Order: sequence, then structure tokens, then C-alpha cells
Amino acid sequence: MARARRAGAGVPVDRQGLLAALRDLLGEDRVISAYEELVVYECDGLTINKAVPDVVVLPASTEEVQAVVRLANAHDAPFVARGAGTGLSGGALPLEGGVVLSLVQMNRILEVDTNNRRAVVQPGVVNLQLNEAVQPLGLQFAPDPSSQQACTIGGNVAENAGGPHTFKYGVTTNHVLGLEVVLPDGEVVRLGGKVEASPGYDLVGLMVGSEGTLGIVTEATVRLTPLPEDVRTILAVYDDVAAASRTVTRIIAEGIVPSTVEMMDRVTLQAVEDYIHAGYPKDAEAVLLLEVDGLREGVAQRAVTMANLCRTEGAREVRVAETEEERMRLWQGRKRAFGAFGRISRSYYTLDGVIPRSKLPEVLPQVYAVGQRHGLTIANVFHAGDGNLHPILLFDERDENQLRHALEASREILRICVEAGGTLSGEHGVGLEKMDLMPWVYAPQDLLAMRRVREAFDPQGRCNPGKILPGTSAVEMPLLRVPEGLRSRGV
Amino acid sequence: MARARRAGAGVPVDRQGLLAALRDLLGEDRVISAYEELVVYECDGLTINKAVPDVVVLPASTEEVQAVVRLANAHDAPFVARGAGTGLSGGALPLEGGVVLSLVQMNRILEVDTNNRRAVVQPGVVNLQLNEAVQPLGLQFAPDPSSQQACTIGGNVAENAGGPHTFKYGVTTNHVLGLEVVLPDGEVVRLGGKVEASPGYDLVGLMVGSEGTLGIVTEATVRLTPLPEDVRTILAVYDDVAAASRTVTRIIAEGIVPSTVEMMDRVTLQAVEDYIHAGYPKDAEAVLLLEVDGLREGVAQRAVTMANLCRTEGAREVRVAETEEERMRLWQGRKRAFGAFGRISRSYYTLDGVIPRSKLPEVLPQVYAVGQRHGLTIANVFHAGDGNLHPILLFDERDENQLRHALEASREILRICVEAGGTLSGEHGVGLEKMDLMPWVYAPQDLLAMRRVREAFDPQGRCNPGKILPGTSAVEMPLLRVPEGLRSRGV
Repeated sequence: MARARRAGAGVPVDRQGLLAALRDLLGEDRVISAYEELVVYECDGLTINKAVPDVVVLPASTEEVQAVVRLANAHDAPFVARGAGTGLSGGALPLEGGVVLSLVQMNRILEVDTNNRRAVVQPGVVNLQLNEAVQPLGLQFAPDPSSQQACTIGGNVAENAGGPHTFKYGVTTNHVLGLEVVLPDGEVVRLGGKVEASPGYDLVGLMVGSEGTLGIVTEATVRLTPLPEDVRTILAVYDDVAAASRTVTRIIAEGIVPSTVEMMDRVTLQAVEDYIHAGYPKDAEAVLLLEVDGLREGVAQRAVTMANLCRTEGAREVRVAETEEERMRLWQGRKRAFGAFGRISRSYYTLDGVIPRSKLPEVLPQVYAVGQRHGLTIANVFHAGDGNLHPILLFDERDENQLRHALEASREILRICVEAGGTLSGEHGVGLEKMDLMPWVYAPQDLLAMRRVREAFDPQGRCNPGKILPGTSAVEMPLLRVPEGLRSRGV
Repeated sequence: MARARRAGAGVPVDRQGLLAALRDLLGEDRVISAYEELVVYECDGLTINKAVPDVVVLPASTEEVQAVVRLANAHDAPFVARGAGTGLSGGALPLEGGVVLSLVQMNRILEVDTNNRRAVVQPGVVNLQLNEAVQPLGLQFAPDPSSQQACTIGGNVAENAGGPHTFKYGVTTNHVLGLEVVLPDGEVVRLGGKVEASPGYDLVGLMVGSEGTLGIVTEATVRLTPLPEDVRTILAVYDDVAAASRTVTRIIAEGIVPSTVEMMDRVTLQAVEDYIHAGYPKDAEAVLLLEVDGLREGVAQRAVTMANLCRTEGAREVRVAETEEERMRLWQGRKRAFGAFGRISRSYYTLDGVIPRSKLPEVLPQVYAVGQRHGLTIANVFHAGDGNLHPILLFDERDENQLRHALEASREILRICVEAGGTLSGEHGVGLEKMDLMPWVYAPQDLLAMRRVREAFDPQGRCNPGKILPGTSAVEMPLLRVPEGLRSRGV
């Protein structure tokens, strides 16, 4: 199973020597090398592309991560950090084999500093685990990806994850203040800290969203946010997607800052309702899930205003959750939508594109039209307030024809987003999924600036190679080729 | 006046050749070369250090900035971008001479996109100018440095400026989404955009706060924030600094997120009141200026809660502004405090240090003790909510003995901040002021990582040389030497 490190370079990894050294370091239990165990790590949430690592290790400390990185370097083997593997852009894929560092054992909350509203955590802490730990203190870690029950803070940092509350609270980078990082050469650096802004270059900001290509995060200092005093959740039901889109623009134009503005379309509603029984209308064309939070005295009033705007813009029904149980039921439907798709379709491919939210009414019909052209069902469940679309392509990946249509449709939809003035990713990252599309949104000199930064940190190209920047990998993967007709740079 | 580019390197700038080329490019009017005009640019708000540029140019477009940078490179001359010159850390100082690019002519607001709450501005747009332009639309640019009436957005970006509203709204980096930058080699790149997060490395985040050392910002796309529906401003008067400090901790522990938590001490109150007549008590030991904003229904109630907490913690008097006029009067005192110091002291040196806000009660007495030891009056007016201290040393810089004491006191105070678990700068940047103190908060490998990033962008070291990173300049300046007794790395 020894593989060439960089296809084309043709330098084989001395797998046996590397395995022996890793076992010396970590013991047998924390070095996985049997093929049947390695295949578990062959992909993340993006199942279209797969690659099996040479070895998976489970370090339990910064020192062990550092030692593993040094060993990998000594053996000229690439290395890739992995959290819960819930990313959707192939970011944790060991594209060229080598060592996968699974950080799940580094799962301790090291400090909760209520006075200064900070937590210090290891990268393997699960997002929900941190939230449950600080909730009794009246605090939250605001970023809440849909995979919150499984995904790790380290993964959130690597991908700059968002979530339904991004519209009000921002993405992960707004909530990370300090990082300990093992750099690709094995040096350990401490960047930022507990303070709001640290002197010198903002390498914390640079690391967040760098998708594991600039180093491996071994500790994060994050911002904790007070839980709102009160929350109101609204479900608005529409017979017309355009009316739902207009409502989003209208609410925001009124100067309201809802904490959540989610939209779900008919396909989603039917799949979810059959699975979760959240009480969603199966015959509607779209629903908006709206939430407003804040001070007790203002929230109820604000919910009324929002409900009225929904009606004015054409909602046929508006429900305001009256109890916490009702609220949770509305959210269950949203949070478990992806599980629902897994029930009705053999495969599904979740896209991640961004448009200016004002363009929702014109872009959504174009997305559906792409599906029709390719004979694919497309569901839409997304962060409407941020213009962050998540079209979900339902297909059967065993059918080569369907797979090809799904891949082509994904490119066409992302192209529509870019041409509407948006971009390629709101929260899933570029990974290997969208690497070859980067020239759609960046000029060569923009990409060169990014490449210079990468080379400053990883001159040998061993740290999660073949991600983000086009032309950094020669490995063939289904998603690594932009279809001919879409190659020109349109923005 | 030709000067060595890097002291030690000894390569003199061909000043006449450079001047001729610049005049060809921009015309006589926009090339300043007479000594008596150049001295205007010899320093910024940090008056302790001075250096006269070889030439000042006033480009009016990205293309002109690019052409100037290319000319400077061709003549091996360093170049420094300058906004309004209100920075306080010597960041715009042409330490090694060369070309200063004053960006004041690039002062147009290019777009206000109300739908998506974004503005696109040139770097010379004054902070207040932008705020006044978007206010009628119910929007604001949230960062509001004390120098708001003069400082430019480009300067805010370079220094990652904060302000009294940072506690609720964050620093500049939280409000900048896209940048056009002329890189040190003259390439123009477009980073980020209007969307919340852009794919690839966050070079926007890296540029913000890089103090003009990684390139020259020629356009910024910034976030606009809805103006709050309502605002309440409170002045709480204390006979005891410790009681005021405790109040800050208490309010925040209650889960309240005030939009402003400013503190002013006795020296400040007296100086301000004699100058502004804001109605501040001259016999108090400290006042808190507190503000809460948000939804109409919640704010009044929240102001009452905050006022009660002030009384509980020992405020002798609590005033809530009843009218906009009263509110403005309270703010005038705070906003114009620095002008007041200029009236009572020949020189003043505004420090910028950060501590965990929970340490306020123990750190403030130490700051006063440093002043006593050095025979200096120290005033304190600062962002207490962020733990961002601004001790102001009053002295006469013509008196060498006083100057030496001021410099030593500044180092001792920053050392106290660092030892309390804080850091060297909250918003003024490192500049040349605190370059040699960076080893107090960063290990050698942390600084090396920053240096690698810098070299990736500016391998020739011509872009604002001798700032931020220690050991990057051999030019002698009063603030470039850490006193012997404070040299060890204590954190």
C-alpha cells in the first residue's frame, strides 16, 4: 500500500519505517495501519472523492502532534489533521496518502474563564460539548454548524465554520482569539491570546479557515457569548419561493437583525416531515425559519413585527413557537434535514455557494432549472440571511451517468452564484472540492499571494497537500476538473 | 538630504532621479520635496520619534499608487503609506526616509449597498465622513476611534483600530470584508469581497492590523451595521477607583453587553472639565461612562439595571442622560479628552496596553505607583470593558530628564499589563513604539512565523521598514531600546 507522495514526484513513502517509528512514539493502540481500519478515514462528508491514508495516529498532546509531524517530515510523508470528518469539501482527505492525525483524543476543555468570557479547548472538543459545558454559566460558543453534535472545534477553526446563527453572530473567525499551532516544520507557536486583538500580524485570523494547510491547531482560545435573555422562533409558510425570498430582504431592510433566517423548500419539507414529523407543511413551496433573540423586553415585540412582515409579503401561515418544546420541534426539522435526505436518496451532494441575499429571488429559479436540465432532484435548505445557499443534489453515485450529471450541475450552480456577485463557499471551505474553481473568483496574482503565504509556512508541501489552491496536486479526482465549458474566468 | 536606506546597508537613495520620475508621473503639485513641507510628515501622533521622508506624494488612484511603488522599488527606496497621521505608535514614520504616500486624495465613498449593508471606500475616506454618509440610511460603520473626526478608514484598517464601542461591536477587522491592495512588488490584488467569508486564506484578516508593512490598501469593502433603535448613556461618579473597576466586572458578570464601558480618572476629569465643561465632577476619583443600545423596548429597562448596579457597587451619583443634548455633552468630554491634555501639559504620551478586565482593580494602583516613582502625572481614560488601558503620561519632552522618565515609565506600565496576563496593544498597533517589546509576549518561533509572512510579501524589506518585528531596523530612536532591567521574557 505504499504510495507515491506526490503523483509525478514519485518518491515512495518508507511506510514500514514510518509505522515502526510511530509505534515507538505512541504505542500499538494509537497507530492504525490495517487496511480495513484505514478505510474509515478514506473520506469526510464529501463522499464523492476518496483516498486511503498510509497510517492514522491518535495523538493525545501537543508534544505528540509535534513528534508525529517531525517523524512524517523525516520520512518525507504528507500529513493531514482530522477532526470528526464532517467537513463537506474533502478538506480532511489524505489525497496523497501519508499520515492522518485524528485529534479526537485531544478533547478536553482546559479552561472556562467566565469573567473574561473565554474558553480554552483542545481541538477535538465537540462543538455541542463546549456549548453544554458553558450553558449553565449563561454562555454559549456562538458558531453552530448543522453538524454541531459531532463536529469539533478544531474542524470549525480549520474550515471557518458558520451555522444558522451566523447572520447575527458571525462565523468562527469572529470567535477565535488565540491558537496553539504545530507548524508544518514541527515548531510550536502560540498566536493571539485571550485579548480582543493581539499585537503583530493576525496569524490567528490567517490560520482560521486555512483548512489545515498551514499547520495543526492543538489548542484554541475562543470567545464565549452571553446567552440571550429571550428567543422567539417563527415558522412562515409560503406557496411561492419568491415571496419567501422577498420577505428576507424586507425584514433586513427594516433594520431588524434576526438571529436566524433559514429557508427550506418543498423537497426539503417533504423529506424532513416524513422523517422528523416537525409539523412542517408538506404542500408548501417554502418556509422561513426565523428567530430573534436579545433582551427580554424587546424580543416579543420584534417577533410580532417580523410575523407581520411575513404576512405582508405573502406568507399563507405564520406560527410563533409558544413553548420551548414547540421551538425545539421547529429546529429539529432544520437540524436533521440532512439525515432526512439520506433516507430518500442513495447519495446526496451538499453544495455551498454564496450570493448577495438581494439576489435570492432571481438565483433560486436558476438553481432549480439546472436540476431539471440534468434530471436531478435539488433540495434547498440554507442560510437565507447570509445568502449562503446549500443546494442538495439527490442522486445515486453508483450510476456513473447520474454522478456525472451531479458533478456538472454542481459546477453550473456555483457558476451562477459567482456570476450573481457571490462566491464559492460560505462555510464548507474550498478543500479539494472547489480548488479548480478558484480562478473564477481570484485573479492569478491573488492566488499567487495565497501561494506565497502557504510556501512561507510549508515550503515542502507536506501539510495537507492538494487543497485550496489550484495546480497544487496532480492526483486525479472526480471533482478536480472544471468542465470545459465553464473554464473561463467570468468575474 | 539623501539618506542611507537601511542603516548599515548604506545604499543611498538616488533622490534626484526618484523625484524627477515621480514628477513625471504625478506632476509638480502632487510631489512634495521642499524640506519645510516635508517636516509636516516627520511624525504621527507619537511625537517622541521623528524622521523626515525624502519625498511625499499624493496619488489619486490605485494605478498611481502602483506606479509610485514600482518607481520606489526601481530606485531601491523604502515607501510608507500614510492616512491622517493620527496613529500613536509611529506606524507612519518614514524611519529610513524614502517615499511617503499620503492617501488623503483617495477620499471617495465608491458605493453604499444598503441591501447588503456594505460600503466600498477609498482609503483616505475619513471615519466620520463615512458615518455621516450612511447615518441617514439608518446605518453606521461601527469602529469609532477617538480620532474619528480626522482618522481615515485606511488608517483604521492598517492599525485594526478600536474605539469606545469595541466592547459590543468589535475592532476594525470585524468590519472589513474586502480589500484592494498594492503589494510591495507593485502587483494589485483583490482580497475577499462583499460576502461574509471568502474562500481560501483570509488575507483580508492578515492585512488588517499589518500596519502598512504588507502592502498599501487602495480600496476597502466594509460592513455597515444598523443604527440601534435606542441608546441610553449613563455617567456614574465614584470616590474610589476600585469601586468603579468592580462595577465594570459586575455589569459584565450580569450578562449585560453594554455598547460602551469607558472609565476616566481624577486627572482626566479635571483637565476635561476645565476645557469642555461637560458637567463632569472635578472632585471625583473616577467616573464610568456607560452606554447601552439596541431595541427600543429593552434599552430603557437595561439602563435602569445598570444604574442600580453602579449604586450597589458604590457610585455616589448616577446620571442618565435624558436628552440627546445631554448625551452629546457627556460624550464631548470623553471624545475631546486628549485635546484637554494638550492644554495642561507641554507633551503627553498616550500608552495602549491591555489587561484582562477582571484585573483592573489590582493593575490601576500599580500604574499610578509607576507615575509616582518617576515624578510624572499619569491620567487614565480608557476602554474599561475591553481592559484596554490608555495611561497618559504628562511631561515636557524638551526636558531630557522628564523624557527619559516618561520612556522608562511607559515600559514599566506595559510590563505590568503583560504580567497581568494582558498584552502590548489593544488598538494603536506596535509600530516602532513597541517593536522591541514584542519578545515579552511572543516566543522567538512566534516572531519567526510573523517574519516569514512578511518576507513572503516584502522580500526586499522596502514596505514600511523597521516596524512591528524586533531587529528589523538598525536606526536609533528613543523608543527602540528596551531598558536593561526589563529585558527578560516574563511570559
